[in-house]
Amino acid sequence: MFRPLPENVSQVATLGAGPIGAGWAAHFLARGYHVAAYIHSMDELDAFEQILDAGWVSLEAIGLAEGASRQNLTVTDNLETAVSNAQFVQECAPERLELKQALYTRLDKYVADDIVIASSTSGLTMTDIQKDCNSAHRTVIGHPFNPPYLLPLVEIVGGKKTDPKAVAWARDFYTCAGKAPLVMNKEIPGFVATRLQEALWREALHMVANGEASPQDIDTALINGPAPRMAVQGQCMAFHVACGEGGMATNLDQFGPALKLPWTRLQAPELTRELRNRMVDGCEQAASDRHFTDMVAERDRAIVGILKAVEKAKL
Amino acid sequence: MFRPLPENVSQVATLGAGPIGAGWAAHFLARGYHVAAYIHSMDELDAFEQILDAGWVSLEAIGLAEGASRQNLTVTDNLETAVSNAQFVQECAPERLELKQALYTRLDKYVADDIVIASSTSGLTMTDIQKDCNSAHRTVIGHPFNPPYLLPLVEIVGGKKTDPKAVAWARDFYTCAGKAPLVMNKEIPGFVATRLQEALWREALHMVANGEASPQDIDTALINGPAPRMAVQGQCMAFHVACGEGGMATNLDQFGPALKLPWTRLQAPELTRELRNRMVDGCEQAASDRHFTDMVAERDRAIVGILKAVEKAKL
Repeated sequence: MFRPLPENVSQVATLGAGPIGAGWAAHFLARGYHVAAYIHSMDELDAFEQILDAGWVSLEAIGLAEGASRQNLTVTDNLETAVSNAQFVQECAPERLELKQALYTRLDKYVADDIVIASSTSGLTMTDIQKDCNSAHRTVIGHPFNPPYLLPLVEIVGGKKTDPKAVAWARDFYTCAGKAPLVMNKEIPGFVATRLQEALWREALHMVANGEASPQDIDTALINGPAPRMAVQGQCMAFHVACGEGGMATNLDQFGPALKLPWTRLQAPELTRELRNRMVDGCEQAASDRHFTDMVAERDRAIVGILKAVEKAKL
Repeated sequence: MFRPLPENVSQVATLGAGPIGAGWAAHFLARGYHVAAYIHSMDELDAFEQILDAGWVSLEAIGLAEGASRQNLTVTDNLETAVSNAQFVQECAPERLELKQALYTRLDKYVADDIVIASSTSGLTMTDIQKDCNSAHRTVIGHPFNPPYLLPLVEIVGGKKTDPKAVAWARDFYTCAGKAPLVMNKEIPGFVATRLQEALWREALHMVANGEASPQDIDTALINGPAPRMAVQGQCMAFHVACGEGGMATNLDQFGPALKLPWTRLQAPELTRELRNRMVDGCEQAASDRHFTDMVAERDRAIVGILKAVEKAKL
């Protein structure tokens, strides 16, 4: 229904000259795609290229795909020119609903309706963005994390009028493009990653407001404590593995009462049997048949590498 | 007042056979200290040594201090023997208040009162632990993050009866011992790192309870999104640097209203002028005279290293 096959895409369009638009352009170029970048005004070209320059250093360090070249980039301030041959469109316009709605009605005309269009928005829903759009079925959220040329996450979710096949196509395309897609079934504000980050951020602001910690204390705590482990295992598997043979079941059954302790200002959910089982089953599926001692060893190898990488980057 | 000078410590005692006690023993051995480890029963020796074995692999990979050797370890189930020559005591007994209170009254007798004793507790306050103790002035919290042989963070805070000089001594000692100490001025439940992690964890449980994400979704989002950046810059500097020339001031002035959005179930604090300025001043001090473009480049080098380290650890 949507074309071409995700693995056959060779030409993409990015819309926007900011860190997200330019960051996506850099990423797609590094993965070997031809990129047509639309920027609102050629006055933004310098800023756009500066972000590309910064991103390219890291992308080369990671390793470029075969045939990848900055020569495969064209930049234009003509929207129709940018998208007319695109096999996928990554929209990164400013976060204003009316502006995005107007943009999507223009894309109706310029982009064949079996081509998927993804929005990088972090704060709006696709149901709202696609409201006035005649080709709403092919529009999805494809939300990256800054910097988009480095962090692999892309959160994907459709709006009310989105065809589920467009969501599936986007997931497959982002996988081909070297990203780590996360498909969501519900449109919730902030998606998954920003909600988690925001909970932490609000608690940090509470602590600074109460004189309990300085911004530097917050960062010292994160950098030297939970963050390196979280970069390796997330939070569910970190607890699952730390509890040894008992895993997440031990964590929840033993430390569940600690959810009632005044650690953070966020009220905890009721730890129902159903929630407990969802957590336990999810972790056991993710662990598959790996023994926790192997996972501890892998975690530790990765943390050693992370600590060394962070130190080395300072030189 | 407390002795010896932090840089002259050569003999430490660890109390406890669990992952924290054995983890601390491994760390101190790797930093070249002589360690006397007290375990409650010699039946725990196998478990203690298994943790030591696992930790030692990583500690060797990071690089041992000169003179570091597992030969410098003695293990005993006699508390007095373990602590009688200690120049510092790291207590890692089970998290039961009555048990710790009783332990500290025994340490009164066995450890000279100018030797600092630190508790690894994550859930109790030193004010409660030291209540019945005659040498409360030298007792502090020294809370590590699991695994303690790898993650550098140690949160330090005294109880009501603690001499501030003991807190300062502990900070200097942990620095000599290769740790990243974070001194807190207020005793708050969960200290800094656990509060932040717990806010995120509660939001994760809410999402799983509501069917908005699976445990694996939570981890995918963290591992590929916020966590690698958080391991490099924490959260305050991540926002400060991402906002370019404007830094944290731009972040709060521009995105402050987003605190009112329903991203997470955690109510945000009021963004007062005072809070805004504390955040801005803190970030500017931490950035010192570094330009944000240099900090972006350093961040990106570190993230490249992290992504490679995480990948390599899987093999």
